[in-house]
Amino acid sequence: MTYLNPEAWLNLNRVVRFGDTDAAGVMHFLQLFRWCHEAWEESLEIYGLEASSIFPQTNFQKDDAKDLIGLPIVHCHADFLRPLHNGDYVDIELRPEKLERGRFQIEFNFKKNNTKVAKGLIRHQAINSHTRKCCLLPDEITLWLEASSVTRGITTCN
Amino acid sequence: MTYLNPEAWLNLNRVVRFGDTDAAGVMHFLQLFRWCHEAWEESLEIYGLEASSIFPQTNFQKDDAKDLIGLPIVHCHADFLRPLHNGDYVDIELRPEKLERGRFQIEFNFKKNNTKVAKGLIRHQAINSHTRKCCLLPDEITLWLEASSVTRGITTCN
Amino acid sequence: MTYLNPEAWLNLNRVVRFGDTDAAGVMHFLQLFRWCHEAWEESLEIYGLEASSIFPQTNFQKDDAKDLIGLPIVHCHADFLRPLHNGDYVDIELRPEKLERGRFQIEFNFKKNNTKVAKGLIRHQAINSHTRKCCLLPDEITLWLEASSVTRGITTCN
Amino acid sequence: MTYLNPEAWLNLNRVVRFGDTDAAGVMHFLQLFRWCHEAWEESLEIYGLEASSIFPQTNFQKDDAKDLIGLPIVHCHADFLRPLHNGDYVDIELRPEKLERGRFQIEFNFKKNNTKVAKGLIRHQAINSHTRKCCLLPDEITLWLEASSVTRGITTCN
Repeated sequence: MTYLNPEAWLNLNRVVRFGDTDAAGVMHFLQLFRWCHEAWEESLEIYGLEASSIFPQTNFQKDDAKDLIGLPIVHCHADFLRPLHNGDYVDIELRPEKLERGRFQIEFNFKKNNTKVAKGLIRHQAINSHTRKCCLLPDEITLWLEASSVTRGITTCN
Repeated sequence: MTYLNPEAWLNLNRVVRFGDTDAAGVMHFLQLFRWCHEAWEESLEIYGLEASSIFPQTNFQKDDAKDLIGLPIVHCHADFLRPLHNGDYVDIELRPEKLERGRFQIEFNFKKNNTKVAKGLIRHQAINSHTRKCCLLPDEITLWLEASSVTRGITTCN
Repeated sequence: MTYLNPEAWLNLNRVVRFGDTDAAGVMHFLQLFRWCHEAWEESLEIYGLEASSIFPQTNFQKDDAKDLIGLPIVHCHADFLRPLHNGDYVDIELRPEKLERGRFQIEFNFKKNNTKVAKGLIRHQAINSHTRKCCLLPDEITLWLEASSVTRGITTCN
Repeated sequence: MTYLNPEAWLNLNRVVRFGDTDAAGVMHFLQLFRWCHEAWEESLEIYGLEASSIFPQTNFQKDDAKDLIGLPIVHCHADFLRPLHNGDYVDIELRPEKLERGRFQIEFNFKKNNTKVAKGLIRHQAINSHTRKCCLLPDEITLWLEASSVTRGITTCN
């Protein structure tokens, strides 16, 4: 589907914006999870996957909605090491990992000037959106997970 | 449906929370619109309407989704008069008004210690969620609008 | 400071609002952390502590800002067990715990109709806001932590 | 300060992310204001202004905080013309305008595939952050406003 080096879709960046801060003058903690999810979406996009093929859309008009695979988040966590301020440039490294039984997770490492400032992790479970029962990962996600593991020494997908 | 005085569902309150603030130490402007929409939801709830009868839900499982009426926001505005800080108690007064052609709007007045600190307005348009064409307001919303105008001198619904 | 039973400030509730949902039709995952933090703020308020004594405020005008104790979040996590929809009533149980070296954490259990739907945890570190070095917890927080452990069989504060 | 064509900092773009949507399957209305503010911050950045020179920062450590100029939002509005879905590419055109008495506003036009989908407007008032009294705009903002009006037929700054 794509011949880009995984580096291209696993190393992103963003700038801390004013609305990300709170009255302590630093990044409000839950914004980190927004950055994680948006970085994941950007990663899929650079890899070549369209949002509409992965994420639920308005489904009022869809008769085939029954067969959609949903990817709800079942667990997430974050560690905050240093404060981030408005205007800070942040590098985001993604480390996706396929898990058993239709699960996968992504670890996100946040760096500012090469210093680790935070890390987050989001774990998804594939489900049938109609029955909400666990199911296998969509093929597109499996491909992205496998392509993402190429440059890493450890084989995370098997 | 209910015999409460409109005062009960048109006069609400909330507390400014830490996550509502930004690095200027005061309420971040767009939170006001979140308060407006949540106050409207709370108002409908106190009046006696269930969220599931008004707002779109997961519709993967619904075969009757075609006939849902959506109420997207077509316009909103806000004026900010005084800063709000974390912990401030805010009174919210709702002034709903029925408009022509499946539209209605709600004006929200925010007061702190009886001093007006901000106001907002949200205007909705009823549409058929399937075709996205304009349609008449749902009966429940019309009832709420009419009940809400009872105590006010001016007749806003006709 | 207060003679309320801890039950009063450790058992809260809220309603899932439309803005908490995403295109999958259910609560967007990071809103849970907003609920956690807001539940904590509400708990302190019911216990009798003012937000201004705990949380940073606009400090342009404060000359004594140097001595403020900040309580940044150093870790958080959440598990999502069942989907939550707009309009759902959610019970929130707080389980605060004092940790060593100026740290404390709060576990939040979310239930809908007595069924556990999610849990979250937020861990704070007391720091001197001027130097950003670790320090002891503010007295008010220690009192709240101790009062909160009264009804529980286990002694979490020592 | 910079010799870029204003086109460079007044024509931006972004992608609608999953967390921007709500259970109606489309962009939740208040996200538009987040995009507006972030587009403005990005515009200042491309023009050559650092966030730290414009926006309040953690000021626990600043003794010179008294002289900061704040730029609180005094008014904003938005019109929503067409629904936006997750994954949509959106072009954002900024039209800044200097107003009298330390005020300025920015109109934001949002287009998808060259079709206007929404517009927003944010109006700021310069104030002395210490006294909160109105004051003149910071020089940096005035320069950005003047540079931004160069390519437009109408002179918006005088």
